[in-house]
Amino acid sequence: MRATTIHAPGDIRLEERPAPTITAPHQAVVKVLAGCICGSDLWPYRGENPIDAGATIGHECVGVIEEVGADVRSFRPGDFVIVPFVHCDNTCPHCAAGMTSACRHQGFTSSGQAEYSLVHQADGSLVKTDGMPDDSLIPSLLTLSDVMATGWHAAVAAGVTEGSTAVVVGDGAVGLCGVLAAVELGAERVVAMSRHEPRQKIAEQFGATHIVAERGEEGEQAVLDLTDGVGADAVLECVGNDPAIQTAFKVARPGSTVGFVGVPHGIELPVRRMFGKNIGLAGGMAPVRTYLPDLLDRVLSGRIDPGLVFDLTLPLDEVADGYRAMDERRAIKVLLRP
Amino acid sequence: MRATTIHAPGDIRLEERPAPTITAPHQAVVKVLAGCICGSDLWPYRGENPIDAGATIGHECVGVIEEVGADVRSFRPGDFVIVPFVHCDNTCPHCAAGMTSACRHQGFTSSGQAEYSLVHQADGSLVKTDGMPDDSLIPSLLTLSDVMATGWHAAVAAGVTEGSTAVVVGDGAVGLCGVLAAVELGAERVVAMSRHEPRQKIAEQFGATHIVAERGEEGEQAVLDLTDGVGADAVLECVGNDPAIQTAFKVARPGSTVGFVGVPHGIELPVRRMFGKNIGLAGGMAPVRTYLPDLLDRVLSGRIDPGLVFDLTLPLDEVADGYRAMDERRAIKVLLRP
Repeated sequence: MRATTIHAPGDIRLEERPAPTITAPHQAVVKVLAGCICGSDLWPYRGENPIDAGATIGHECVGVIEEVGADVRSFRPGDFVIVPFVHCDNTCPHCAAGMTSACRHQGFTSSGQAEYSLVHQADGSLVKTDGMPDDSLIPSLLTLSDVMATGWHAAVAAGVTEGSTAVVVGDGAVGLCGVLAAVELGAERVVAMSRHEPRQKIAEQFGATHIVAERGEEGEQAVLDLTDGVGADAVLECVGNDPAIQTAFKVARPGSTVGFVGVPHGIELPVRRMFGKNIGLAGGMAPVRTYLPDLLDRVLSGRIDPGLVFDLTLPLDEVADGYRAMDERRAIKVLLRP
Repeated sequence: MRATTIHAPGDIRLEERPAPTITAPHQAVVKVLAGCICGSDLWPYRGENPIDAGATIGHECVGVIEEVGADVRSFRPGDFVIVPFVHCDNTCPHCAAGMTSACRHQGFTSSGQAEYSLVHQADGSLVKTDGMPDDSLIPSLLTLSDVMATGWHAAVAAGVTEGSTAVVVGDGAVGLCGVLAAVELGAERVVAMSRHEPRQKIAEQFGATHIVAERGEEGEQAVLDLTDGVGADAVLECVGNDPAIQTAFKVARPGSTVGFVGVPHGIELPVRRMFGKNIGLAGGMAPVRTYLPDLLDRVLSGRIDPGLVFDLTLPLDEVADGYRAMDERRAIKVLLRP
């Protein structure tokens, strides 16, 4: 099959690789209809994460079941499925508590930017639609594989409630989905911290009530001014680097929680501020499967359209261009069609 | 008046100081009936915090109103009051949200180990009893000034719920009060990590169902074994140093929260574990006033007896001996009678 591989920073290739095969009875092989590039794929692309040269890359996809292992009960070839980037059995104690991303049989999608992908715990992980969805829904369904569920997790972890003021730090696709999640969870005011006009527009389409374009101290002051100096009731940290973390804790009101979902890179938590102001930190790798049924309902009913985060669609053959476009911030998020 | 002062590490004195006087209309002066030594007083005593040589020390007390400022409406001389260590107006936005320790008019008790103490926001901060309480209640009432409310905050921040398994890291007076709080909040299993027999006994009196005497990896494994490898639903970190923090995050189940109330000293938060396992951190300086009415009810009704944490009572004149006893762990917590 054709699969995206990474060889070194900046070196993304589409190469021939053996298609995955079933090696355990609870697995399934999915023929990928759409995959995409994640902000977290840019860490190795930029040389900020170690690289296993020649390994496949890509952890988000939707597609059609190609083959299932002997123990798979709920799916059969031809089913359209959303593949959470983190696989789970959905029965272990962690899954039962809703923390499916910490499943005892945790697995990961490893060839989402390819023609086929292997799912380790098919019954526990996958969610299917009734029949083939309309092609126009593919982008939004694809976001449920990671980015929309991750933005949702940020909002849940931050404790967004009805009538609250939420601030979203980061205007990548996750941050934009965080805006949408905060709106859906009832926030009355949603402040998107974004200095890029195309992203500001999507944030507004998703329901952001305020845009703060300034960064650093200026941006923090702007948020404090918006909240009479009190700070936000909930802060979604959707980047993962230190400036974003510091801003998140600066704009969070005492007693609130920063929900973080950006894989942390070189961050130093302001522990004395956290203690003195009682500002908590919650979140982490999103339990995608936990949120999937609810999010799928919202997409299928037309209530949310998170697929708007895709502003560039490329054939899989042009995946390297897709990485460049995201790296250079010419694209928010790139959808790939095998 | 006689007041406890600190001059250098290990140098605690009882000296003559001017009694506090009203300098603003919302203040009150309290004649101290009982004060005590806090674990956090040991930080400067041990030279681990900067010292303002000759300054008074002590932030916990109960007593009788001596004098009130012109704007004080709810209290008058003779009222028996509990003095939260952190003062608040109880009306600002942070107070209204329950985060009274972040009040915009925040103040602190600064001569709790003395004959008199000044309260900056008397109406917002103090809570009185109907008439003079029985002398036998003084120790428990005194704990509401800080230690019991702080243990309570750890349990609330950690999200202890009915039927849960809670682990308390730290067997100082705060940790012991944390055990009591977790029991009161409905935890079915409360694991006290303690290797000191007298403290283990109080933990059991407070309702601990399990004692883990081991420390470090052994102690962590013991907790994991108790929970079938899952980890605790809620962890109360009641020390504030790095080993305690690391243990807290090791024994917390994915998706749970570590409630921390020990003033952090040299801790490094395990951010990658927090992210990968979705283990949150919440807590900080306890909003004592917020919890006071409820805790006072529990004490007055005889439901809880947190005063058991005082295992040594000394006249104020012997305060220096009290510090030594706590520093050498001969006493859990020392009550001082002026």
